[in-house]
Amino acid sequence: MNKTDLEALLDTRREGHGLPRAFYQNEALYAFELERIWHGGWLFAGFTFEVKNPGDYLTFSVGGTSVLVMRDDAGDVRAFHNVCRHRGTLLCRADAGHVRAIVCPYHSWTYSRQGELVNCHGMHEGLDKSKLGLRPLATEVVAGLIYVCLSADPPAFAPLRDEFAPAARPQGFEHAKIARMVEYDVEANWKLVWENNRECFHCQRCHPQYVKANFDIYDEGTASEAVKQKMAAAVARTQSKWAAQGIDITHTHGGLATFPDPDNGLWFAADRTVLAEGFDTESMDGQRVAPLMGSYQDADVGVLRMRSLPNFWVHASCDHAVAARLLPVNSRVTRVRGYWLVNETAREDEDYTLDRLLPFWHLTNEQDWDICKWQQKGVDSVGYEPGPLSRVKEYNVDAFLRWYLKELRAGGPGVASRPLTRVA
Amino acid sequence: MNKTDLEALLDTRREGHGLPRAFYQNEALYAFELERIWHGGWLFAGFTFEVKNPGDYLTFSVGGTSVLVMRDDAGDVRAFHNVCRHRGTLLCRADAGHVRAIVCPYHSWTYSRQGELVNCHGMHEGLDKSKLGLRPLATEVVAGLIYVCLSADPPAFAPLRDEFAPAARPQGFEHAKIARMVEYDVEANWKLVWENNRECFHCQRCHPQYVKANFDIYDEGTASEAVKQKMAAAVARTQSKWAAQGIDITHTHGGLATFPDPDNGLWFAADRTVLAEGFDTESMDGQRVAPLMGSYQDADVGVLRMRSLPNFWVHASCDHAVAARLLPVNSRVTRVRGYWLVNETAREDEDYTLDRLLPFWHLTNEQDWDICKWQQKGVDSVGYEPGPLSRVKEYNVDAFLRWYLKELRAGGPGVASRPLTRVA
Amino acid sequence: MNKTDLEALLDTRREGHGLPRAFYQNEALYAFELERIWHGGWLFAGFTFEVKNPGDYLTFSVGGTSVLVMRDDAGDVRAFHNVCRHRGTLLCRADAGHVRAIVCPYHSWTYSRQGELVNCHGMHEGLDKSKLGLRPLATEVVAGLIYVCLSADPPAFAPLRDEFAPAARPQGFEHAKIARMVEYDVEANWKLVWENNRECFHCQRCHPQYVKANFDIYDEGTASEAVKQKMAAAVARTQSKWAAQGIDITHTHGGLATFPDPDNGLWFAADRTVLAEGFDTESMDGQRVAPLMGSYQDADVGVLRMRSLPNFWVHASCDHAVAARLLPVNSRVTRVRGYWLVNETAREDEDYTLDRLLPFWHLTNEQDWDICKWQQKGVDSVGYEPGPLSRVKEYNVDAFLRWYLKELRAGGPGVASRPLTRVA
Repeated sequence: MNKTDLEALLDTRREGHGLPRAFYQNEALYAFELERIWHGGWLFAGFTFEVKNPGDYLTFSVGGTSVLVMRDDAGDVRAFHNVCRHRGTLLCRADAGHVRAIVCPYHSWTYSRQGELVNCHGMHEGLDKSKLGLRPLATEVVAGLIYVCLSADPPAFAPLRDEFAPAARPQGFEHAKIARMVEYDVEANWKLVWENNRECFHCQRCHPQYVKANFDIYDEGTASEAVKQKMAAAVARTQSKWAAQGIDITHTHGGLATFPDPDNGLWFAADRTVLAEGFDTESMDGQRVAPLMGSYQDADVGVLRMRSLPNFWVHASCDHAVAARLLPVNSRVTRVRGYWLVNETAREDEDYTLDRLLPFWHLTNEQDWDICKWQQKGVDSVGYEPGPLSRVKEYNVDAFLRWYLKELRAGGPGVASRPLTRVA
Repeated sequence: MNKTDLEALLDTRREGHGLPRAFYQNEALYAFELERIWHGGWLFAGFTFEVKNPGDYLTFSVGGTSVLVMRDDAGDVRAFHNVCRHRGTLLCRADAGHVRAIVCPYHSWTYSRQGELVNCHGMHEGLDKSKLGLRPLATEVVAGLIYVCLSADPPAFAPLRDEFAPAARPQGFEHAKIARMVEYDVEANWKLVWENNRECFHCQRCHPQYVKANFDIYDEGTASEAVKQKMAAAVARTQSKWAAQGIDITHTHGGLATFPDPDNGLWFAADRTVLAEGFDTESMDGQRVAPLMGSYQDADVGVLRMRSLPNFWVHASCDHAVAARLLPVNSRVTRVRGYWLVNETAREDEDYTLDRLLPFWHLTNEQDWDICKWQQKGVDSVGYEPGPLSRVKEYNVDAFLRWYLKELRAGGPGVASRPLTRVA
Repeated sequence: MNKTDLEALLDTRREGHGLPRAFYQNEALYAFELERIWHGGWLFAGFTFEVKNPGDYLTFSVGGTSVLVMRDDAGDVRAFHNVCRHRGTLLCRADAGHVRAIVCPYHSWTYSRQGELVNCHGMHEGLDKSKLGLRPLATEVVAGLIYVCLSADPPAFAPLRDEFAPAARPQGFEHAKIARMVEYDVEANWKLVWENNRECFHCQRCHPQYVKANFDIYDEGTASEAVKQKMAAAVARTQSKWAAQGIDITHTHGGLATFPDPDNGLWFAADRTVLAEGFDTESMDGQRVAPLMGSYQDADVGVLRMRSLPNFWVHASCDHAVAARLLPVNSRVTRVRGYWLVNETAREDEDYTLDRLLPFWHLTNEQDWDICKWQQKGVDSVGYEPGPLSRVKEYNVDAFLRWYLKELRAGGPGVASRPLTRVA
């Protein structure tokens, strides 16, 4: 897809409406999305506690590209292209594991945990091993979250750090553990998954559990006085107790907080909002399902929400957090890993049980993946025409699409600009 | 595929021979066939009795495009693109069902059975709902058959109506029911399925059951005098009894009736022919397998055959009818729905049994799909060269290919002509 | 892919390094490889004893093209395109079988075992049957091996014959039989399978069984004096006994014999080398697993190895031989048939058992296909960069890649040169 064709395609979106059919079908566009957004942006890779000790590693694949994330001997988290510098063989094959050194299973080229080539016995004399270490990738850690960027010229990470670090501090992700992971293969283009995520217009119909706990389905225009009063009371109660400790209710009204904000370069956001009356946490009955996390002293902390484009979000209650990591498998399949986190000291079947911990979000997830699948089938039709987005309910879908188009426009073939950066 | 490349490809067919390999493999050509023939022509969708009451619906997919056929509140059959005007989600997911209104499973946009948008609660003020009804598709009904055209400029339907209505009247499709439906996924390009259908040269080898009941394998040149006399006697007998009632034997000699006829714009045809001695119907033993259909008064009515390009044929005996609806899944898979129809008052296991009703055509169908699959494997070879078509046995294959090439030629990119129309 | 694009791609390989990523992913390049290398070169099809009697046949598919190999009535082996000259239907569907004549399952066009069209009853008068015989393919037989070329202008076969005939004579492939065949679908591009085959650098890590029997892992530079002495002793012992009978140890040092040799047009090679002390044959424990083959008089004959590009190799010990036939299914899957041969008079469970015959090479094969699969996954990564090939261990990988590039360069679109020919 040359620049002219790309720009012509980008121009086919009608303001305030969804994307035309080609955006969900064109393979050349998908290849360009991979290059520009998925290889150009910061990807959430996992949690620091997943690679607790030197030699612990995790791997993930974006498009057809495998990334290796490892704790090195100095205790730092590093990321590399997970392929041997010799003949390209995939090095670490498991999703996660531990190694003393990285040894290629083909010809035993051996790399240190810092990625240096330390042994390639059998090669000819005169090879400069120092130039054959694993190809490093930009890596950042904030609040227990690991981010990796495949680009040699990554966007600035500091703005995300500045936003996430204080917001996440009381949650204590650094001292969490994974109670359960579920891999979902969603039969939909990755953009449909985000469009779904960026509005709660569908919650009333699709998410009978979710709407009991959250105020997202209400917006300023349509919420009743009763709802507004309940929300205001919850905000006031929490604020007065915890604001000094950084447990600040920053999203105080109904509807989703604004995100993303392409006009201000915001591809990440963190906010805290309150839960409905009777809900201490995002569980089926609102009752706590695990011990308190982080520095929380009681349940009355609302929900911390953080997200970053193109592949991460988390809802963190007082007692557990549920995160999602998105990775495109191809233009029509998106792999979503769901993480259920609890405090690292919590013991399964004593302090928490999976049958109480999982359902709220597992159901919500499956409801979303199902509707995304049917939307993909629909936008495949020649009869599909992008319709209007609700200005009161789908402002964030519009924002997402504007962000997406801006990313592609800025990054036309051959252009090395970095629009993922927050504008200072 | 631009017009020059298309025309160059179309010109590679050698007169009187099959199509070159590229016609069964080229994805750009397939996309153009979808646009020109499958989205441009009249598609058989189903039977009126499948959507008997207001709110009854059926759906089908052509290429990746889903169509919704529904009986509206006024009792008319309508068709729509089966996607929501909001975000494009597929609306009705079942092959068939009943609804009070069409409610999108995503955001509850609600459409009447006439396709009007009646509710989109949650959208902003000022939206013109009258412009957001379901996108209607041209729909026609004749003799109990529903036809839909995806084009905004459909070919004339009256010629088909003029041909089918009188021919089908005594069969009474309007008062039939489906005794059984079978979906076949044929591993062959849709054109191979039609090429197979348009000749009985293969019947002797492939269809041991079929040839016992029918005169199709004979042609004027090779039929013996004994065969000709038997056929003539059957024609005379039936004609003398029923012609006044419209049960007219119009195809009176061996071999297949000529169809299609691209020189005269005929993409549909109906005729009636006789069955072999001892065959009252197309069953394994020739014995009737269900009560008489329509206005027939005894079994001696031969077989009514109707077909229309690109996706329908039916063989209707005195007591039952077997129809086929073709839909391309992709360039290499054709979905064929087989329908076994009986009179709507016939009771299973009392008036008919499936083990007697199904085998004749289920076997014939499976024999055909199998040979189509092996032909597809063969034409995939670089060693395949289109061979000569028999002028005595395969004149209709030639006619089909000439029709096909004419459709594509007339409908070159950007050309809005309508060659599917019968020439007056 | 036009010539300019092709040449630009071919020029991206850096000397002494592997191939860039596009070589394993580009579908247009794969189509060109099929045309140039797979349809242009000599393909090993099978063994003469597989089609022992007139009417015996075998089939195989290369890309999507099916080839029929048959023993004709005069006792000669012939090959044809396995598609009917009428409508292109695949003729013989089994991998192997026996027919009195080749009868198309569609319309009964009938061909003699010589490929002549002898019956096409139902066609019109005046058809020239002599022009509608099966399309013959160039066929050669040497030392019990059948080779077929799909090109109308095949490369010279005599050089291969001159090399293989004397080398294979004592092995007696003509009087062998298949004890077992195994079909492997390797999830890797065919070139990765050859790259794997052309070096034993990986043997130490991947093939614990293989390295016990063979000297391949040693090279002149790194072999210890003890190893060199053992090898020299084995060479001297065998030579003194058998050289006069053509059992000549031509590969007398460690490491793989040089092959291919693109500078000298060598796309085939045969040599004999010795086995390690204690190994009479390539079995798990080195003990013989079947009666002696051919004219061998005792076990001390080393191993005869022959190979030809693009699809054959064999390791033949005194008592059995293990061959491989490669065929590309698509750009990412290579079908390898493994053959275990023994003398035709050997009786299973009396003279040999499969549990002793198979493991050595079945394990080695599976180890190779597994590593090829992981290499394919790795070279799919945008992080893959071709690394340096070991000049001491991977000279044959380099030679294979140079052969490959030369084939494609010489055979640019429209060019009918024949680089597969050995330079005289």
